[in-house]
Amino acid sequence: MAELVGNVLVGQSGGPTAVINSSLAGIVSEALNHECIEEIYGSLNGVLGILNEDLIDLAAESQQAIRGLRHTPGAALGTCRYKLKKQQDFDRVIEIFKAHNIRYFFYIGGNDSQDTADKISKLAQQQGHELRVIGVPKTIDNDLTVTDHCPGYGSTIKYLATSLRELACDNEAMGQGDLVSIVEVMGRSAGWIAAGAALAKRRDHPHDAPHIILLPEIPFNQEKFLEDVRRVLKRERYCQVVVAEGLTDGDGNYVAADGATDAFGHAQLGGAGEFLSEVIANNLPGVKARVAKPGLMQRAAAHLASKTDSDEAFLAGQKAVQAAINGETDVMVTLVRGETDQYTCETSLTPLSDIANGVKKLPREWINEDGISMNFQFLRYAQPLIQGEVQPPFDNGVPSFSHFGRQRVDKTLAAYEG
Amino acid sequence: MAELVGNVLVGQSGGPTAVINSSLAGIVSEALNHECIEEIYGSLNGVLGILNEDLIDLAAESQQAIRGLRHTPGAALGTCRYKLKKQQDFDRVIEIFKAHNIRYFFYIGGNDSQDTADKISKLAQQQGHELRVIGVPKTIDNDLTVTDHCPGYGSTIKYLATSLRELACDNEAMGQGDLVSIVEVMGRSAGWIAAGAALAKRRDHPHDAPHIILLPEIPFNQEKFLEDVRRVLKRERYCQVVVAEGLTDGDGNYVAADGATDAFGHAQLGGAGEFLSEVIANNLPGVKARVAKPGLMQRAAAHLASKTDSDEAFLAGQKAVQAAINGETDVMVTLVRGETDQYTCETSLTPLSDIANGVKKLPREWINEDGISMNFQFLRYAQPLIQGEVQPPFDNGVPSFSHFGRQRVDKTLAAYEG
Repeated sequence: MAELVGNVLVGQSGGPTAVINSSLAGIVSEALNHECIEEIYGSLNGVLGILNEDLIDLAAESQQAIRGLRHTPGAALGTCRYKLKKQQDFDRVIEIFKAHNIRYFFYIGGNDSQDTADKISKLAQQQGHELRVIGVPKTIDNDLTVTDHCPGYGSTIKYLATSLRELACDNEAMGQGDLVSIVEVMGRSAGWIAAGAALAKRRDHPHDAPHIILLPEIPFNQEKFLEDVRRVLKRERYCQVVVAEGLTDGDGNYVAADGATDAFGHAQLGGAGEFLSEVIANNLPGVKARVAKPGLMQRAAAHLASKTDSDEAFLAGQKAVQAAINGETDVMVTLVRGETDQYTCETSLTPLSDIANGVKKLPREWINEDGISMNFQFLRYAQPLIQGEVQPPFDNGVPSFSHFGRQRVDKTLAAYEG
Repeated sequence: MAELVGNVLVGQSGGPTAVINSSLAGIVSEALNHECIEEIYGSLNGVLGILNEDLIDLAAESQQAIRGLRHTPGAALGTCRYKLKKQQDFDRVIEIFKAHNIRYFFYIGGNDSQDTADKISKLAQQQGHELRVIGVPKTIDNDLTVTDHCPGYGSTIKYLATSLRELACDNEAMGQGDLVSIVEVMGRSAGWIAAGAALAKRRDHPHDAPHIILLPEIPFNQEKFLEDVRRVLKRERYCQVVVAEGLTDGDGNYVAADGATDAFGHAQLGGAGEFLSEVIANNLPGVKARVAKPGLMQRAAAHLASKTDSDEAFLAGQKAVQAAINGETDVMVTLVRGETDQYTCETSLTPLSDIANGVKKLPREWINEDGISMNFQFLRYAQPLIQGEVQPPFDNGVPSFSHFGRQRVDKTLAAYEG
């Protein structure tokens, strides 16, 4: 295989996670090890930065800033939900790549982003611009196919499991048989995140909170819900409910959709928690419902990031660079779980086209018969992903995060009018 | 002063905090040092446990369980919002105290609870039952008078400042001039908690998030709010808004009250965040609002407890016992800030009647002219309260909390029919 000499471009796309910057750190630190890589650029706000030629010089950032990425939430390069649509957009991307001699493109994102990477790769090939494109998985939704799990997921469910266990202490202290504590979590089409709430339970304490997990996979049945709540209130004196934002009714409609859609045509949700609160108020007199909705906090909580997750995110970034150096292209790094009882995780590669726009569902057989709790198969799957704590440095009582100096790469092309 | 030999009763009341159990640990561990104290009982669910004679033997709990209280949220004894009303209730309390030879009563709670403690003390005196009653302050609302600040407050604002700084990384990464990130925090009548959000800003970075803090002290003005949002969006490309649940309009009405009231006649609130989201949707086309509402999570987040706060909560418990042993009664322990630049905190005592039902307002002069940010006086006040981290032990990826064995004290009286 001929050595490919040129520059690296990295982009981050879609919703940030607590560890997406760990993958960036993995890419940058690994890229510095290879002499065929000349410059390491970052694209600001994903593909938008490519279109607008908003590139920064990542090698100019301090080592401190790169190291600090491992405990910094958000996306240090900025991200976007912009979807390349027109041929003109794609042509512009290749034009930019040529202008800056980009030979390695690493795109950290979910399935829409891997689809974008795949299309860019194919167009570069058509246009005879030698380019290696490697996807790095990222999504708290954990819904990418092929990979065992997705960087970002473990940290989100560690945050939720911790917060729910804490909340349970509060609820238990207050409950007199009349308190329903509802927590609305993310998860539009799959219940991976809500399911992760089950990790709040202590081992061998099946009656621990959360008592009721409402998944998008199980249509909402109001009568059953109220019956479940009544039973738990009688037994525990409080009832903790976790509900995925994407909860649907028997007809497949969201119980709390507001009709709006995002740039990819997905429905924008919110309010499943408030919906349940109203169901309680209207049907269980004397019972008080309290709603919490951590919202974007659940994907930004770097102070509770899983060390396993953070390390794997970093590893995925490193492996992406190594794969590209080895001549791979059009692939995404996947995480592969070892087959022994002791959890191990290695990486592999899979074609981007396998990932693009696919969705991995939460297996129905991991949900208990009652439809509101997870069985040992899920716990065995999820438990290893939340192990270990990342300890961010605190400064004056608050975690201290990395901030890039963002030294701009000189623009060489006319502004994009696309 | 004659030594008073007898038993201790401790109760926890009102909303739990991340450190109310630290105060309990302080009381129990200090009580064990004094020979005049024979038994150490806990009342389950505050005064309800007294009325119902639901007492547990705290000396029977393991040392591990007592030590673990220092990082366990909720209220290990359970709490209540029940307010003693009838003379019959008060008589029952004294009857219970006599039956169990309770000579020391420690009540950890807010102003309503200190009012209750005061009344119990006065009735015991009338009835000739020698009793020393010491209040231990507790409230995330930070609204008790006399004391410089309240145990529980520092941990809540440390949690919020951390979460907001993390959220800002996420918002900044996503913002394209069209994202308003709204976080609704607790605070019914005073803006102490919302104000604490200001600690998320880095020193000398006045443009850091949160950009707009809406306090109950400043009536909501929609035009000004929209103008503030527009200005921040233009400058920062995203706008982080913190809103207290108790935000009011110009007429003093809550912007989002649902009309319900709690046992003490306070309006039950919720929805100020959703209210602002609607204001945005109706007035700023193309701007997307995302709402987060940590709800009770903000007072249960022991994993982000302030070490300063936790230590002071413990100290307040210890000092309560020492004061009682020294013959004090009818007083609450207060926290007194030293006058040097270097923060120090000692304790003092103040009559319960000074605390009962009083409310300490956030000083108007600590709010900037713009009405949406806090000045250096507030920061100087609040900064020391969030210093230091309590590191809870993690077990299998989630914090491990103390659980009491709850060995019941034998009932000696007939069930209460009150």
